[in-house]
Amino acid sequence: MKILALSLFLGCSVQVSAQEDANNVIKAIYTEALGEQQGYKWLHYMCTAIGPRPSGSEAANQAARYTKQMMLEAGADTAWLQPVEVPKWYRGTEWSKAYAGGDSVSLPTTALGGSVPTPKEGLKAEVVEVGSFEELEVLGKDGVEGKIVFYNTYMDHSLISTFNAYGGAVKYRWAGAMEAGKLGAVATVMRSVTLLRDDLPHTGAMSYGDSEVKIPTAAVSWQAADRLNQMLEGGTVELELFLDCGVQGTATNYNMIADFKGSKKPDEIMLVGGHIDSWDLGQGAQDDGAGCVHAMQVPNLMKKVGYKNNRTVRVVLWANEEFGLDGAKEYARWAKSEGVYHWVAMESDAGGDVPRGFGISANDTLLEQVRTFKELLSPYGLHVFAQGGGGADLGPLRGHDDFFIGYRPESQRYFDFHHSARDNINAIHPRSLEMGAASMGALFYLLDNLD
Amino acid sequence: MKILALSLFLGCSVQVSAQEDANNVIKAIYTEALGEQQGYKWLHYMCTAIGPRPSGSEAANQAARYTKQMMLEAGADTAWLQPVEVPKWYRGTEWSKAYAGGDSVSLPTTALGGSVPTPKEGLKAEVVEVGSFEELEVLGKDGVEGKIVFYNTYMDHSLISTFNAYGGAVKYRWAGAMEAGKLGAVATVMRSVTLLRDDLPHTGAMSYGDSEVKIPTAAVSWQAADRLNQMLEGGTVELELFLDCGVQGTATNYNMIADFKGSKKPDEIMLVGGHIDSWDLGQGAQDDGAGCVHAMQVPNLMKKVGYKNNRTVRVVLWANEEFGLDGAKEYARWAKSEGVYHWVAMESDAGGDVPRGFGISANDTLLEQVRTFKELLSPYGLHVFAQGGGGADLGPLRGHDDFFIGYRPESQRYFDFHHSARDNINAIHPRSLEMGAASMGALFYLLDNLD
Repeated sequence: MKILALSLFLGCSVQVSAQEDANNVIKAIYTEALGEQQGYKWLHYMCTAIGPRPSGSEAANQAARYTKQMMLEAGADTAWLQPVEVPKWYRGTEWSKAYAGGDSVSLPTTALGGSVPTPKEGLKAEVVEVGSFEELEVLGKDGVEGKIVFYNTYMDHSLISTFNAYGGAVKYRWAGAMEAGKLGAVATVMRSVTLLRDDLPHTGAMSYGDSEVKIPTAAVSWQAADRLNQMLEGGTVELELFLDCGVQGTATNYNMIADFKGSKKPDEIMLVGGHIDSWDLGQGAQDDGAGCVHAMQVPNLMKKVGYKNNRTVRVVLWANEEFGLDGAKEYARWAKSEGVYHWVAMESDAGGDVPRGFGISANDTLLEQVRTFKELLSPYGLHVFAQGGGGADLGPLRGHDDFFIGYRPESQRYFDFHHSARDNINAIHPRSLEMGAASMGALFYLLDNLD
Repeated sequence: MKILALSLFLGCSVQVSAQEDANNVIKAIYTEALGEQQGYKWLHYMCTAIGPRPSGSEAANQAARYTKQMMLEAGADTAWLQPVEVPKWYRGTEWSKAYAGGDSVSLPTTALGGSVPTPKEGLKAEVVEVGSFEELEVLGKDGVEGKIVFYNTYMDHSLISTFNAYGGAVKYRWAGAMEAGKLGAVATVMRSVTLLRDDLPHTGAMSYGDSEVKIPTAAVSWQAADRLNQMLEGGTVELELFLDCGVQGTATNYNMIADFKGSKKPDEIMLVGGHIDSWDLGQGAQDDGAGCVHAMQVPNLMKKVGYKNNRTVRVVLWANEEFGLDGAKEYARWAKSEGVYHWVAMESDAGGDVPRGFGISANDTLLEQVRTFKELLSPYGLHVFAQGGGGADLGPLRGHDDFFIGYRPESQRYFDFHHSARDNINAIHPRSLEMGAASMGALFYLLDNLD
């Protein structure tokens, strides 16, 4: 550890002792997290007693009230709920069936979030497969009109960061229906955006953009996509699709905001957050219940180990990240109007697996200072201190503030669960989750001791 | 990457190009592993078609024949089975029941490996709880005689390496019955050696040492240990224990040995291995099916990406690690008698989770050379290049050879599965498993290009 950062710790004049103190506080934070597993207990309640928390749901509001209460019990000085108007989209019955040469096969199917429904009697049409937008364009109107476009598109398995692989595949989920609709397709289905070769479909947000043509759109499971692909190799395939879903106006959800006042610099806010909403198929354990309890653990762990924060630690659990970032936009609007100064803002929205490190958006001096923490944190598995980071919910604060951090857990398993029925409490490994909470707590402790 | 190591790659004279070549080969190794997932396919067969492979079982022999065949199909120049005489221990019916104040509670229970059985009618005695050998000693003969000793002992949750936590707790499994037997106890039960707070018991090897007193010994689940502890807080508790188990002579198992001959230095052996046997409660997926397929993937991945090894890559899958290391001892005896030169020997026996790095036992020069690989391997999550490493099955080679490597995956989940019914194919995450195989393959590729 560099002398510069060392000398800032805890006002100690002897550097060895300062490093020892820091080591002891960090060790205590991990020990508390791994012993009590308070984050896992909160998450267990959110997943099993409250359940899925889609945008506009009463469950999202229950979770906001529950987490506010938990933060007050953990010693928050204030905690309140900030109302946010959010769209409400519902999912009813949904299924699809492929027909070829007299045989029929049911495919695990789920509507993408935002899709219009099929007609009440469903729809049935010939399937045409594409592997990319380029292939769609080559087919053109002649090849697509009146048909169901099947996006047999993949996350790139060769990419080590599964978030990078997600980035390359999710465009077909987002814009697949819009592009196929322009060419006269009657519906689209896609291979689920996942790396697990299983039989569960994964949902997620889609958009029609400004297009007036709105066609129903769904994901089928990895294995169903394989089956459909094999059937198509044998000749013509028809698909029957039934989706009962659609927008049902708006509703009020809430951002949960809890402050643990700083003793020396109460007006310098250290924000830490996750998003409270989830998709409806699972319990939102990984996405983003894990991030919520990570954030809640940061001030709780500080309190439990007897550390008094200099700056104010603020926990924000945002409403409706998945379906439009409404909570993040409303929080940023309010913060700007009130002149809130976020000295740092950290988000956890990459799941609850074991820690790898952090992505950091900061000026060079600050980035270097954070990197000096590596020596203290590497015994806990933290080795990534990458430039650039944050998360979707921090986006609306950019420009206003300038120091952002995104927690980076191991990413290999994340898209196994993501937006599917598999994202329930069983997707969570308690120790790994708590290692993340402690890592974020330890980093905030170190940051709180920087000038 | 240092110039020293660089200039050794592939005979290239231009250093940038050598690093690019190395990068390309490594990338190809990971892409092949993550795409084809051949290691997972092999493991799936070993777990589901063959199943548990305890010492002395016919299943262990089936697995030896299967893996030999797979290695030949992968292009091994030779593959053979080396007979090893191993002890055979069997497990029959087993259960326990705690009685207090008229109530009775069944406890998930499993005999420790090597335990003698209870009498045919079972046994029933008062329970006395201890938290350590020190507490046992304080109780002494007066406090223990005629009773069942309950080791309410824990892995230390505050340790980040769960293997370190295991090291501190496993002594009660190994020697608990021996120590309690000396003081006249009639049996022992212990809290399972795990960090997952669940309801499955975990077995593992125990020993009576030279003691003539042999008392039955079992593990109960974490939650059962909690229940027993709570009952004891209310007063006297009796435990009824029934264990049908015991040694059934010996049997012949096999080490599987497959050579992929080196083109330039065929007599310099690069050994890579895992152990083929498992405990009987699960399918031995993590312990150590994962290590077996990791080892098998190393030469397979080299072949698949078109790399020709200079040295001979030898895969060894040892018989009976769990119950006496017989396979490792026999292999080492044979290798020494034949004058085999192991230039390096690497083992994978820490499960199939995502890679963290390697533990390396080597002279300082070699250790530094291996550490120069960090730059090439860190994009794949490898950041631990620790001094000291190997594994139990490499032990008998020490003294004879002097360059050992142990693969170190993430350890947080390992003891959730370890030696329990949970250690089945569902414990394996395919991508994480393959990341390990590719990491070992990439390291062997880099080593093969060192002089």
